[in-house]
Amino acid sequence: MRILALEGSAKSASAALFEDGMLRGEFFINAGLTHSETLLPMCETLLRTLRVEVGSVERYAVSAGPGSFTGLRIAIATLKGMMAVTGRRCAPVSTLESMAYNITGDGLVCAVMDARCAQVYNALFRVERGAVTRLTPDRALSIEQLDGELAECGPIILVGDGAELCYNTFKRVRSAVLAPEPARFQRASSVARLAAQLPDEAFVTAEELVPVYLRLPQAERERRRKLKGEE
Amino acid sequence: MRILALEGSAKSASAALFEDGMLRGEFFINAGLTHSETLLPMCETLLRTLRVEVGSVERYAVSAGPGSFTGLRIAIATLKGMMAVTGRRCAPVSTLESMAYNITGDGLVCAVMDARCAQVYNALFRVERGAVTRLTPDRALSIEQLDGELAECGPIILVGDGAELCYNTFKRVRSAVLAPEPARFQRASSVARLAAQLPDEAFVTAEELVPVYLRLPQAERERRRKLKGEE
Repeated sequence: MRILALEGSAKSASAALFEDGMLRGEFFINAGLTHSETLLPMCETLLRTLRVEVGSVERYAVSAGPGSFTGLRIAIATLKGMMAVTGRRCAPVSTLESMAYNITGDGLVCAVMDARCAQVYNALFRVERGAVTRLTPDRALSIEQLDGELAECGPIILVGDGAELCYNTFKRVRSAVLAPEPARFQRASSVARLAAQLPDEAFVTAEELVPVYLRLPQAERERRRKLKGEE
Repeated sequence: MRILALEGSAKSASAALFEDGMLRGEFFINAGLTHSETLLPMCETLLRTLRVEVGSVERYAVSAGPGSFTGLRIAIATLKGMMAVTGRRCAPVSTLESMAYNITGDGLVCAVMDARCAQVYNALFRVERGAVTRLTPDRALSIEQLDGELAECGPIILVGDGAELCYNTFKRVRSAVLAPEPARFQRASSVARLAAQLPDEAFVTAEELVPVYLRLPQAERERRRKLKGEE
């Protein structure tokens, strides 16, 4: 089973090909470049280097959120384009859960993304002997709330683009460690590895594939606030 | 500081760019293709995608062995070519030690490569809170010897292209686990991360850059055996 995974939920961008439980290849960049210019070319280069026809990919996977509204849309739209032609299905996975798969030894993992407005998207996972167990749902919390919740937790590995922010801001957490740099950020290989473990029904059609936002987009929040003010 | 790392010690091939302690990008494939056809194009594509001029790379890193004699030579020769033009230096790192950096949580790690002839190149490392501590030198052992040595060790993470072989062959080790697939094999990002922590004197000139074999090449072993027979 060939799974092509795309990741564009934040500043980094990546594409990965999984085949029968093996990572065949991954192209990852974290350079603040525009996903609309990099993601599809990276995907095409990866497949061409692997001598794999794009039409031979049997399933897709994508980090569907939380994350940058534009970044998520670009990755999802790219896959929707492929799906429109091939009719094949895609697993939308949690960006936070996929990052727990970056951690390859044991530990308690807090995946955390900067959600701006003093909030962080986050979720907790236990990683043990190659297995990832989810301990909380994906949620948006203030850094202060998360600090309080984790204060009694013992050693914790922070992963994600909000890891450094939390590490520097936490006041009560005493034993956090930043995930080492190659594992700090979102990776399509982790999206693919998570998707490879999902049942058939987790793979949806192009119509069903939508981003998962934990909050409304800022423009929408502002529109609603204005409408409320006018009432 | 920009570090370009190449990895070609086994079936997989990869190129990575590290900059000021951050992984800017990595292109990894594990498809049994010929390194002489893939490694340099992957490296060029990575730099082009990152909008980085090859001449702006300040240092190089390479897994210098143990590993496939041809694979090591191709990666090293590619970098020697660049070094001949730029005059910049390269850190040759242990292939086994670099793989310990694939493990991003905590654990006791055995990096192991199939050395054929019923032997495995291997070394033990302790990974804790993002730091890697070497516990043994790189060595070639029989799988049986390694099995005996690790029998009393408690939980151990096996990484490398010899991991599955050992996992399936070990008779006395009871609590080994295979590193999850994206972290199972050699990665240029891990070579770069290891090199980024090395002192200046670990970076050598093109003349000083040579592969590190733990055993003589098979052709050389056979030649010596023949010569011995003729004595």
